Parts: sequence; structure tokens; C-alpha cells
Amino acid sequence: MEYAIGVDFGGSSAKIGLVTRDGLVLARETAAIQSGASFETVLALVTQRLKALVAERPAGDRLVVTGIDMPGFIDKKDGIVVGGSENIPCFKNRSPQDYLARALGVPAFSENDGTAAAAGELLFGAGKQYSNFVLITLGTAIGGGLVLGGKVYRGSRGFAGEVGHICVVSNGALCSCGSKGCFEQYASGTAISRFYSERMRKRDCEVPEATPKIIAERARRGERLARETIEEAGRYIAQALGSILNLLDLEACVVGGGVADAGDILLEPVRHWLADYCWAQISQGVHVLPATLGNDAGIQGAAAQALERIEG
Amino acid sequence: MEYAIGVDFGGSSAKIGLVTRDGLVLARETAAIQSGASFETVLALVTQRLKALVAERPAGDRLVVTGIDMPGFIDKKDGIVVGGSENIPCFKNRSPQDYLARALGVPAFSENDGTAAAAGELLFGAGKQYSNFVLITLGTAIGGGLVLGGKVYRGSRGFAGEVGHICVVSNGALCSCGSKGCFEQYASGTAISRFYSERMRKRDCEVPEATPKIIAERARRGERLARETIEEAGRYIAQALGSILNLLDLEACVVGGGVADAGDILLEPVRHWLADYCWAQISQGVHVLPATLGNDAGIQGAAAQALERIEG
Repeated sequence: MEYAIGVDFGGSSAKIGLVTRDGLVLARETAAIQSGASFETVLALVTQRLKALVAERPAGDRLVVTGIDMPGFIDKKDGIVVGGSENIPCFKNRSPQDYLARALGVPAFSENDGTAAAAGELLFGAGKQYSNFVLITLGTAIGGGLVLGGKVYRGSRGFAGEVGHICVVSNGALCSCGSKGCFEQYASGTAISRFYSERMRKRDCEVPEATPKIIAERARRGERLARETIEEAGRYIAQALGSILNLLDLEACVVGGGVADAGDILLEPVRHWLADYCWAQISQGVHVLPATLGNDAGIQGAAAQALERIEG
Repeated sequence: MEYAIGVDFGGSSAKIGLVTRDGLVLARETAAIQSGASFETVLALVTQRLKALVAERPAGDRLVVTGIDMPGFIDKKDGIVVGGSENIPCFKNRSPQDYLARALGVPAFSENDGTAAAAGELLFGAGKQYSNFVLITLGTAIGGGLVLGGKVYRGSRGFAGEVGHICVVSNGALCSCGSKGCFEQYASGTAISRFYSERMRKRDCEVPEATPKIIAERARRGERLARETIEEAGRYIAQALGSILNLLDLEACVVGGGVADAGDILLEPVRHWLADYCWAQISQGVHVLPATLGNDAGIQGAAAQALERIEG
């Protein structure tokens, strides 16, 4: 059986695993990354753990490729992390894929996490039956990735899919990227929690720490402020997706990330509002559906983007 | 010499011509379209004129394909005009490409005019040296087209490139498409004239009929209200392009249409503001440049998209 390595780098840990061509995760573990660790230290540790996992596979199994994903801008021609990797600072201007290719003896490819997630959904998840779709991941921030013409779309240097930084409010809220009015400021988990707190505070309500999960639960129970908050986020999501659809004429919009766990209480408003932000001819028949990869999505996405590349 | 037919349908006339593989226009003319004319009448007239042009070519020349462009949504699989063709109502739900393919004996392909214009710039104009670019056409309305990975991008049904209907102002001005806040409402020639008039009126100035050309000329001479109007349009153009770049990671933005004749007085503000709407890593090195096809752009674009299709 052929399989790929998937390495999903976060700020404090790397999730690593072995993934078959069908998306089955054969093995997984998490390696802690010490704050301030050097590039070589981080990758030597990951290599060691990966070699141990690979060594456990039966003799007939064959490792074909290593896939890596992480936040940030990764040059598609050499895998150099050119920016946006503030939570893994030692990666800046280095190429983790070169290191792992040498260390493990198979080709390795790095990818932005949003684009890797889109590859994961394309090969193993909700995107399987579509040739043209956008994935958005609604978490603390908003990421995304594109599949166009049946293939992962990376753009001219590999930086495509920054869905969270589409401007949805002209001259709006300042974003961490330096721009104003980015989608991320209006529909991420952070934004949803903030909007809910603001609504509560305006009404002199006690303001608890409310996660998007709690807010969605309250909305489901009919609490008015929670419902309005979720509805508003849904409207901004529809606005961003409507613009993307008008530009790209896609078949589906796949919504993932922790916030998407809210399910239909969030997706129904998105479907409802989409008609208000998109040509009828274009929105007609477009599916807005949840991502289907779960806890292993990071590892599966990392592996998927690499498998997709070697398959051409 | 091999050449293509280009037919550019507008509301009251069709521009027709013969175009070589290098983009040279060998012959051109304009056929008036009677208001209320039937599908067959319009296409019989165009066929007759085209046959006369083709008959004038020397014996060694060979017609290889017919390209048609027009506003609206054209299904890429069968060329049926499924909507947006209000100015040529007889085309609704019909396939002009089928008619012309049969009438002229070579393959024929219809395309939305914005996408055809992008094909024209790719094969013959400002897009020649780029593999990934967006074209926007700033006219009475705003159109557009995309070239991704060196090929014209059409989307899942052929409706991609509706750049003018990206939402730039949440819940903003009502657009003819039915959505609110569309880019077209903020940077088309119509919008520029309206904003200028509004600025004048607020100051009790006499309000002449000012075209974008006149406004640009006044801005160039330093008239403050004209400069502010052009600057504001430039900011909205930068906002739309910044969102597109964040999504697609392109090499260039090509700006065409009558409004773009304003030149650098418009494009300089666009370049200036782009940094405010785009990741630095993504906007870096992106060229914002004028379209280079001129009066024959419609014919050349129609021919280009067809030539690009048969070349695969």
C-alpha cells in the first residue's frame, strides 16, 4: 500500500501522520515544538518521529511523498517560507520541504494550510465530486483555498486563497494584515465572539467569555442576540462567497474550521443571503456545504496537497 | 495565412472582422442590428457580410475558427446565451455559435465580452508576458476576465469574470444586477460621472454633463473636485483588485475600457492604494497596466478566445 506523510505545523506543535491515497490515517501523533527552537532542532525532532512511524509499517507498504502545511506564504517553486509564519519564526526564509526531502528520501512539498485543507477536501472530503470550489476555514482567523478545473489552484507564487483578506467593508475594521475591512474581521470566530460581547454590553448584560460554539448553541435555543450575531456572520460569509462566485463561477462553497461546527444554524443564513450578493445565474445550483474532514484534517490536507502534486 | 473571424455583438450593431493568429485585423466592418430583429435575421445578415469578407481573402489564406463575443452569460458547453443579453433579446436561450458554425463551416465559439477581452490581451496585447492576470474593463458598466496558469479561465459553466459585481461596499448602492454595493456602482464611467455631479451639486456649482474623459482632463489640470473623484474611483479599483489578488495571487492587473483612457491620472492612485487592500507579499511586483488593444479590441477579443480554444 502506498502512503504519504502529512505534517501540520502549528505554533506550539506539529501534528504528524501517515495517510493512504484514500485518505485513511494509518498513524498519527503530536510533537511539541519548544518556543525559540531552531529550524534544525524542530525538523530533526519531526524527522525522528516520522522515521519511527514509517519503521512500523509492514514491508509491503511504500512511502511516496511528504506533505507539509503551515500558516503563511510559501513559495511554490522552492518551498521557502517567505512570510506569515510568525508563530514558527525559525521557518522564515527557510525551506522545511528541502530538509524533509533530504532527511526522508522522498519528495516533499510545503503548502499554506488553507490551500492544503482545500486539497484534503478535494481528495478525501466534501470536494470529491466537484471540480471547482472554494474552501473557507472559519477559525480564530479565516483561511481558504481554491480548486479550479479539478486541480488545486496556487496562484503565480503559491500565495492564492487568502479568502480572509477579501475586503468586505470599505474602510472597515483594521485587520492584523494591515488592511481595513477584511472578511476575517467580520466572520471569524474572534469576530463572532466580539460582536456578541458588544451586543450584550450595549444592553448592560453581563458579558461572559462566549465562544462561537456557545453562541451557536444559544442561537439554536432561540436567544435573540445570539441569533442576530450568527445571522450577521452568515450575511458577511454570503457576501464574501457571492463575490468569489461572481469572479470564479464555482460549483460549491465548502465551509470548514471550528466555527463551521455550528452547522446549519450558520449555513442556512449563508445560503439565504447568497442570492443577495451574487448573479442568479451564477449562484443557481451552487452547493454551500460543510467540510467533512475532522480532527485529522491538518494531516490529511498536508498529505493530500503533496499527493495531488506528484499525480500532476 | 491562417485567420479567425471575430464578431463582437453590441446592442445596435455587430462589429465583424478577420484576425490573424498574430492579432492583425485584415478586414473589419460594422453591421447594424435592427431593434426587434429575429435571431435568424441578425445571424443571416452577419453571415452574409462575413462570407463577403472571407471571399476577398487570397487563395492561400485559410479561415480556421469563428469567435463571437457579447455581454451576458454564455454556457461554455453549447454556447447558449442563458442570460444577461437584454440588449440583444433575440439571443436569449439560443446558440449563435451553432448558427455560425453551420453557416460558415468552421468551429465557432461564443464568449462573454469581458472574458473575450482578457483573451485578446493574452494573445495580442498587454497580457502577452503574463500567465496569471485579471482584466477589468471600465466602461458604462464594469466587465472583466481572468487568465490563470496561462489559459483563459471560464469557470464551471462559463460565467466567470464578473468583476464588476464583487461587493465593495457592504449594503451599498443598488446595482442593476439586483445586488447592493457592487464594484460597478463605484468605479464605472457612470459612477464617476455621478460622483462628480454630486460633488458639484453639493457646492452649488453648475452641473454640466461631464464624461469620465472630461473629468480626467480636469483632474489633470488640477481641478480639485475632479481630482478627488478620480482618486476615489482609483481607491475602489484598488480595493477590488486587492481582494482579487489576495484570492488569486496574480502577476498583473490589466485595466481597459473607455475610462482607462484617463491613463496614469487614474492608474497611479490605483497603484498607490493597492498596498492598503492587499498583503504586501502578494501585491509586491504586481503590475497594474493599461490594456493595449484599441478600437479593434472587440473583434480581436472575439477571435482570440476562439483561437485559444482550438489551440487547447
